[in-house]
Order: sequence, then C-alpha cells, then structure tokens
Amino acid sequence: MSKHVVVIGAVALGPKAACRFKRLAPDAKVTMIDQSPRISYGGCGIPYFVSGEVNNIDALQATPYNVVRDPEFFRVNKDVDVLTETRAVSIDRAARTVLVEHLRTGEQQTLSYDKLVLALGSRANRPPVEGLDLAGVTAATNLEEAEFIRNAMAAGTVSNAVIVGGGFIGLEMAVALADMWGIGVTVVELADRLMPGFLSSTLTRMVRHDLEKNGVTVLTGEKVVRLEGEDGAVARVVTDKRTLDAELVIMAAGVSPNTAIAKAAGLETDPRGALIVNDRMQTSDPDIYSGGDCVTIPNLITGKPGFFPLGSMANRQGRVVGTNLAGGNATFPGAVGSWVVKLFEISACGAGLTIETALREGFDAINVHVEQFDRAHFFPEKTIMSLELVVEKPTRRVLGIQGVSTLGDALTARINAVATMLADKPTIEDISNAEIVYSPPFASAMDILNVAGNVAENILEGRARVIDPEEFERLWNERASNDTVCFIDTRLAGNAQPFLEKYPDHWKNIPEEQIHDRLGEVPTDRTVVLVCNTGLRAYDAQLMLAKEGVSNTVSVQGGMVAMHKIGADI
Amino acid sequence: MSKHVVVIGAVALGPKAACRFKRLAPDAKVTMIDQSPRISYGGCGIPYFVSGEVNNIDALQATPYNVVRDPEFFRVNKDVDVLTETRAVSIDRAARTVLVEHLRTGEQQTLSYDKLVLALGSRANRPPVEGLDLAGVTAATNLEEAEFIRNAMAAGTVSNAVIVGGGFIGLEMAVALADMWGIGVTVVELADRLMPGFLSSTLTRMVRHDLEKNGVTVLTGEKVVRLEGEDGAVARVVTDKRTLDAELVIMAAGVSPNTAIAKAAGLETDPRGALIVNDRMQTSDPDIYSGGDCVTIPNLITGKPGFFPLGSMANRQGRVVGTNLAGGNATFPGAVGSWVVKLFEISACGAGLTIETALREGFDAINVHVEQFDRAHFFPEKTIMSLELVVEKPTRRVLGIQGVSTLGDALTARINAVATMLADKPTIEDISNAEIVYSPPFASAMDILNVAGNVAENILEGRARVIDPEEFERLWNERASNDTVCFIDTRLAGNAQPFLEKYPDHWKNIPEEQIHDRLGEVPTDRTVVLVCNTGLRAYDAQLMLAKEGVSNTVSVQGGMVAMHKIGADI
Repeated sequence: MSKHVVVIGAVALGPKAACRFKRLAPDAKVTMIDQSPRISYGGCGIPYFVSGEVNNIDALQATPYNVVRDPEFFRVNKDVDVLTETRAVSIDRAARTVLVEHLRTGEQQTLSYDKLVLALGSRANRPPVEGLDLAGVTAATNLEEAEFIRNAMAAGTVSNAVIVGGGFIGLEMAVALADMWGIGVTVVELADRLMPGFLSSTLTRMVRHDLEKNGVTVLTGEKVVRLEGEDGAVARVVTDKRTLDAELVIMAAGVSPNTAIAKAAGLETDPRGALIVNDRMQTSDPDIYSGGDCVTIPNLITGKPGFFPLGSMANRQGRVVGTNLAGGNATFPGAVGSWVVKLFEISACGAGLTIETALREGFDAINVHVEQFDRAHFFPEKTIMSLELVVEKPTRRVLGIQGVSTLGDALTARINAVATMLADKPTIEDISNAEIVYSPPFASAMDILNVAGNVAENILEGRARVIDPEEFERLWNERASNDTVCFIDTRLAGNAQPFLEKYPDHWKNIPEEQIHDRLGEVPTDRTVVLVCNTGLRAYDAQLMLAKEGVSNTVSVQGGMVAMHKIGADI
Repeated sequence: MSKHVVVIGAVALGPKAACRFKRLAPDAKVTMIDQSPRISYGGCGIPYFVSGEVNNIDALQATPYNVVRDPEFFRVNKDVDVLTETRAVSIDRAARTVLVEHLRTGEQQTLSYDKLVLALGSRANRPPVEGLDLAGVTAATNLEEAEFIRNAMAAGTVSNAVIVGGGFIGLEMAVALADMWGIGVTVVELADRLMPGFLSSTLTRMVRHDLEKNGVTVLTGEKVVRLEGEDGAVARVVTDKRTLDAELVIMAAGVSPNTAIAKAAGLETDPRGALIVNDRMQTSDPDIYSGGDCVTIPNLITGKPGFFPLGSMANRQGRVVGTNLAGGNATFPGAVGSWVVKLFEISACGAGLTIETALREGFDAINVHVEQFDRAHFFPEKTIMSLELVVEKPTRRVLGIQGVSTLGDALTARINAVATMLADKPTIEDISNAEIVYSPPFASAMDILNVAGNVAENILEGRARVIDPEEFERLWNERASNDTVCFIDTRLAGNAQPFLEKYPDHWKNIPEEQIHDRLGEVPTDRTVVLVCNTGLRAYDAQLMLAKEGVSNTVSVQGGMVAMHKIGADI
C-alpha cells in the first residue's frame, strides 16, 4: 500500500512539500487541507495587491503563466488532493490520525496518515487592547484580509488609516496606502524606532525620513491603548500620547507561530510557541515534519534558536520536507536572517545581526557606516548607497550587514554577497577582498562593500577614530552650550560655503589640502569633529593631523551625505 | 632614515598601493612614475567616454567629488611624489635602483628604493598581421587612445569600424560606437563564439542576438589576415572570409602582462609572462611587490595559476601591497574570476568556470540552464533572467555560475552571492538553500538561484533528463530528416496554437494537464522532446510520463523563452 501523507496548511510550505514529495514518490497519496478557500498564494504580495500594482488577486495565486493554483490544479497537475475550508481540529499521534472539520457543513472526518506535515504558519499578534473586533480593524496576512483592505480603499470610505507596527508588513502597507491611494497614513510603533531589530538607529532614521518625506506620519515609542468605534466601526486610535482619526486600522505588530493544535498533540515548542525541528525539519515526533512561520530554526550567527517568518524560508524548507518525506536526507541547517523591503524612494536590506542585536547577544562589536556611489563615480547613472557592517572586535568576524539605497537591486547585490558568507564566519579581510563583480555600470573598482571591510580595519586598528551621523547630530545640536567640541569641514571651499554663511560661529572650513599650512588653526584643547561629504576627506585629514601630533579628532562616518539622508536639521 | 618606496605605474594598483602605504607610514617617502601624462584613471570607463556617456575625460581621472587626481593632487593630498611622462628603463636589484628616462627631455635618472612596486599593467595583444601601424588602428587601453577614438567619432570621418576581438573590451566598444554614434560596427572574433571562456555556447548566443538586434555585425570563427590602407590610413580589414570597409580599427584581442622590464631584471614569470607573486603580493624578490594586470594569482576554483586583468583586482591587491609595504601582513589568496558586462538591452555576468572550461580542466561537470522571473512573477516590473550553474557530478560541487538578463543589477545580485561562496567549494545543496534576500519586488520566494540548485539535483539524480536550447535547435532543424525524434509542446493550447499552425507536421501539443488522458498519443519508439515556456511544465510532464513507464523523453532547459533569447528560427 502506498504511503499517505497529510499536509495541514496549503499556503507556502505545504504545497511546496506536497509537490516535491509527489515528484519523488509519484505513487504516494497526499491530502492537503486548509481552512481558507484560497490556497497556495504569495502572501508577501498582499501589499502590492492592496496598492493596486497587482490588479487581480488571482495573480497572487497563479503560476508564472497565469494558471490559478486551486484544488483542481493540484489534483490534475500535481496529483495532490486538497480540501479547502477544512480545519484541522486535533492530531492523534498514537493512532496517526487527524480529525478535521469541513467548515461549510460542520461535518467532521478522520484522516489517517503515515507522515504528517504541519504547515501551520503564523497569525498576526493581537495586542491586549480594546476595540480589536470593531469593523475596519484587520490584519494583512491572508487574501481575505487583503481583499477587505483593497475594497475599503476602492470604496473611498477611508480618509485616514492607522497601521499598528512599524516592521516589514506595517511599512509595506503604509507605502501601499499612501503612495497609491493618497490617504492619510500613520504608523504607530511601540519601539523607539521603525524596523526594530533589523536596522541600526542611523539607518532606521533614513527609512523614517523616506516615509515622512512621502507624507506618512511616523510615531515611534508610542503605545496604542485602545481603539474607539462609532456604530460598530472603528473611528479613532487612542495611543498613550494622542488620539488619531482612523476608518481603517491594520494590525501589523508582528506574528506568532500558529501552533495550538501541535502543542495540544504534545509536540515540543519553544517559549515563543514555535515548533522545535531538527535540520531534517522533523518535529519531536519523527513522523511529523514542519517548517515555515511555525517553527524555530538555528540562527547561524548566534547559534541560538531563531524565528524567521518569511515566504522564502517556507519555500526552501518545504522542498527539504518533501525530499525527506520520500526517504531522502536533505537538510536545512538554519538561517542568518536576510531580508529586503521596498519603501518609497529607498529600499532597505540586511542580513545577520545589527549593532544593537550584536551587543545584546554579548558580542564586543562595532558598527561601520559607509556612504559611496554604487557604480563607478564617473558613470552617469548612480546613487549613493548607505552600507553598514557589524564586526566583532576581538575576532574581526563580520556579524551582519545592513543598508539602504534608492537603487534596491544594487543594494541586494551587496547584501546577498555577504548573506551567503555569514554562516562561515567571514572576517573583515574576506570583505575587503570580496569578489564583487566589477564594471563601471555596476560597481566601483574598489566597491562600497570592499570599502566597508577596509574602514572596519582602519577603525579596529585605531587609525580611524569615528562617530556616527547621529552622534554628530547630537554634538552639533549642543554646539551653543558645549565648548569641548568644535567642527571642521574638510571639503573644498565651494562645498563648505553655504554652511559657513549659515553658521558663522560654529562652522569652520579647512580643506584637506590646506591642513598642513593651517595647522595652527586646529584647536588642540577640545575634540575636533572632522566632517566632509562621505567621510573620506575627514579620514585623510585625521591622518594628516595625527602625523603632526594632533590626535584630538574624530571623523563623521558617512559625513554630510548621511546627515542629509537621516533628515538632520543642518 | 625613512623608507623610500618607488612605484612603477600610476594607473590603478600603483596609486592604491602608494596611498595605502602612506596612510600607514606617513613618514615614508614614495615616488611613483608613469610614462603617460595622465595617471590614476579608471581605464574601465573608456567605453563610456568613447560613447559620450562620460562627457569629459577628466571625470575618469577625478575623485567622486571632481578633484582631478594629477601629480599635484598626489603631492598635496597624499604626500606622494609623481613623475609623469617618465619611463622605467631598467631595474638593478642588487643596487636597489631603477633607471628612469624623462620622456620630454630624454634625460635619465637613477632612483634608489628600499621597496619597489611594479604596477606594470598589461598591453593590448597585437596579432601578427600587416597594417597595425596604419592611422586609424588603435587599442582602447589608455586615455590617449580613448581620446583618439572619441575625436575620430566626433569628427564624423568614421562610417565603419571593425573591432578585432569579441571579449569584454571589444563588446563594450561595439556598444559604445553603435549605440551612441550610429556607425556601422563589425566585431571579428577568432574563436567560435563571443566572450570565449566566459559564457556557455547558449549564453553567448544570447549576447550575440542582443548585438545583432542592435545593428552590430558579429563574425565569429573568423581570422583577420591583414589591414589595408589608403594614404597611410586604414581603409579595409581583410579576414580569411571577406573584406570589410573600416576607417577605424580597434584592437581588442586580449591583453598580455607588460613585464619586459621585470623579466630583464630576472624576476620569475609564468609562460604567459605574468609575474609570479605570493599571497602577500611579493615577487620572487621579496623587496619587490606587484599586482594587477601584470601578475598571476591562483584561480581558487582550479587551484592553478590564473590571470585576472581587471581594475577591481588591481585596486584590492594594491591595498594589500600598501599594507605589506608598511610591515603589515595582508594577503590576497587568489580569485574565482567574477565579471560583468553591460551590452545593449542585456548584461552578462559570471563567476568561476563555464561548462567548457570546467570540462577542459578535467572536471566531470554538467551545465544547468534556468529561465525564471527575477522578481515574484506577480510583481508588475520583472524580467526573465537566464542563469546557468556549472556543477561537478561526483562531488555536486558548484564550479561556476553565469547569466544574462535585461536587469543587470538583479543579475549581479545572484552572481555576487555565489562568487563569494565559490572558493569554499559550495555544493548544490548550498545553492538550493542560499539565503537570497526576499521580497516580491526583488526575488521570488523560491529564487531563480535556489531553483538552479534544485534543477541541478534533479538532473544529477536522473529525474530530469534534459537537453539545452542549442541541442533542441539542432534536433528541430533536423526534423524533416530525423524520424527518431518527435516534439511535444506541454503548454496550454493557447500558447501552442501559433506553432501548431506554423508547423502542422512536426509540432504536437499535449498540455501537461492532459498527459494522463492522452498517453496513447505519446510515441514510445523515438525520443520525445518535451518543451514548454521555461522547462517547468516539460519537467512535470516528464515525471508524469515516467510514472506511466514512458521514459524516452527529454525536456528542454529554458524552453521556448531560451529559444527566443538565442534568436533561434522557430
């Protein structure tokens, strides 16, 4: 008798595992169930359907050649049986059965399995506040919610939307609503910054500036305390600081593993509720596989359990599950955590740890910030990319990389290059020598990524003494009251002139070229902050001054370009 | 007494080594010489100056903030002395001196050194043909030649140009001349394909199709036998097959290390003439460093000596030289060979070995060809990327990756990800699980790179039996006379219809969905070539047929999309 595999969940990992398994074991029987009517869709595409960029919701559920992946598709093309609008009620591991309920009829049925796949996914977190059940309050995690939001926008009944949560989904939804529908959008984030855990404070400021420039109101360090309604529909969001009008509230305060049924069956989970799996994606019951948003896998940087709810993870892990269901021995060792998000004019992208997470994990780490053109600087089409490298000081090991840029693909070209190295503990020398493909339309001869490695070395060896843009901003804002610090612009006079005129008392210009001749003008009794466009001239000036015995200097990483990108008032 | 370092050559590696050294050892003295008037320029930018995209030649010699890197710049900003129009005549290693000649005056001078850097670069190969000294015949390796070509174009005296050599420089020049100046351009390449050694035959066909679509005449497998002139200026290029009119001939038949002076001084070179250096970039004389286009470094894939004449190599190696000159211990272990080139509508990019080079090096290897969207297929802006993976069969080790795409940055995002892994001998499982950053505007949930790893596994395990687009083209062209082969289009009827009408005798359509019902129509007495848009449906159909005992099938890698891209007549 051929093997029977039951798959609970038919969005990403489930279908991938089912189809892979069937390709390897064509005689086996697979039954896949899902509580929703729609299955096998690209949930990450929801913001683009809401915005209207993806016109028809079927596109999210279709193959590249526009065949909708409905139960009939799975039956005919994949020989996989699918039961939609069918909920798994409980698992009896001893009997190897799953009790399911057909939601339309209320009828229950028991499915026997030889192997079981739990593709349970995640659900949007619901903060403990009143009003979540008001009409107009929704998450954005499935196609039904996506259609609700799009229909609300199309109906023209929404003037103001509040998005609770400033992570990936929250920001993508903010862009979708503000950019394409032109309504008032406010993002409320509990943490002190957008995308907490994914970007340094400096880079998150660049993200915030991009959103604010494009009309989104960003409120960080602010807590939603309740939602207020009128006639059963949401009308206002009350935070600990203000009240916001809103006819639409999107809950995007993170997701949690949807594992109640698995826990009830006695499978091991971590404190977050994520299923514990081995590198073959087996749960604590070797006949039950899992993956995607409902499991924990190792963070390959820290070696600790990680949580990576991402469609790409689900797909890759699904293939591993499918292979192993068929008796293969595929492994998924873990992840470094790589990601990208497109905002208005910029995209943000990263892999591995940020400086804050590295410090919190106990690494003795520094953060390197580089601003440089993404192509040869003489090539006409180019943009200045912002790139940060997180480096463990004693070992020179690279722990993470993050960046923002207007040309997102070029940014991913740098992040991917490091993401695939990170698990092997690359050092800054590996980054300095990293073989980024070179030609003037695509990179500099000394690419920004290589430069980031070089700068890290200069900092670790004490040659470059740096401050980051936000520290510069703080010192600059204190300039009137702090006489232990002064500021020298090392650019050519033409660049410095507007600042000299605007700040005659505090802005001083000594171009790098004149440092030797004007040495006497450099104060030795206070910290001299050296600034230029991106940090290069300031570093050279710092070395020239050091040679002359003047070492009371710091240079600003990223320089005036970074200040502009974070929206600093200077 | 402070150390004196002499640097011969001031284009890429020389200035980088000099400046890095001075930053580490500010008290040392550096003298850099070059025979040209212009120094420290981006030679890789020449095609973009010739095209006019870079308007002013100074831009190639300037910093990102438009300061020209002339001798005065190096003196004031870098404390490096530069002698231009100064030629190194000979090196006396015992005396540690370099005899130099000032080209304007003919005067000679002896420079003493503690350490010497040979940044000798490369020179364009000169095939042994008559007429190379005619006016209008030039290489494109330095700024003087670049100005000559641009001036010739601007003067309007050139109606036809012939480019001898179909490698990177030759093709970039072809694009520059045809795209921006609209003249007749012919590329003559001795090998049987463009970019020999860098792309598979299939991908090189895509490059050729791009050039031909845009008006460039491509002649491969053709040898230039002489250049003919009129009144001392070139007028015709005579090949072994025809005579071409040409008022401009650009020699781009590769480059060779420019090491005569080093060889005369007794330094070790390889058969090609490239200086042998260790991983600290020291030549056989430990006081003499070298790097860039004039050295051989290990190919990290084959372990054999490699030759990588690329500006990015020179810059990264220059920094290693500078560090070691100052007593540091930086290393440059070698290269996998990564590259990118922008053509008309497409760019081509790669790293490591092609299938042909892998086989020639003795690897038992296969080539995997994948066509897939570079973003989520439902995202509005996307393009179908072509990607190939070269895999060693017994070890499943990935030896190389190449691709072409209209969106070059997205292509580099995949190639860079693999380029940085290649030296560590990744397997196809590493590629299947490679953590390419994911979001619908940038990648698919199962990215094309992951898919390439997956397809490689399916082929190696015998599940997928494939032919490449050129083999399909050959079989198709033989269709009238070869009755051992038949063709089945597994797409839906709508896609197949035009082909059924055009080729009623040879095109058969059985959509994947109907395979089971129409099994009797699949011949079992000949090879059945299964084709679809990109190869996915054909693979599924192949598995369905195999399940029914029909195993006389092959599927076409890349499918009709690849056929279209190579310009096949179908």
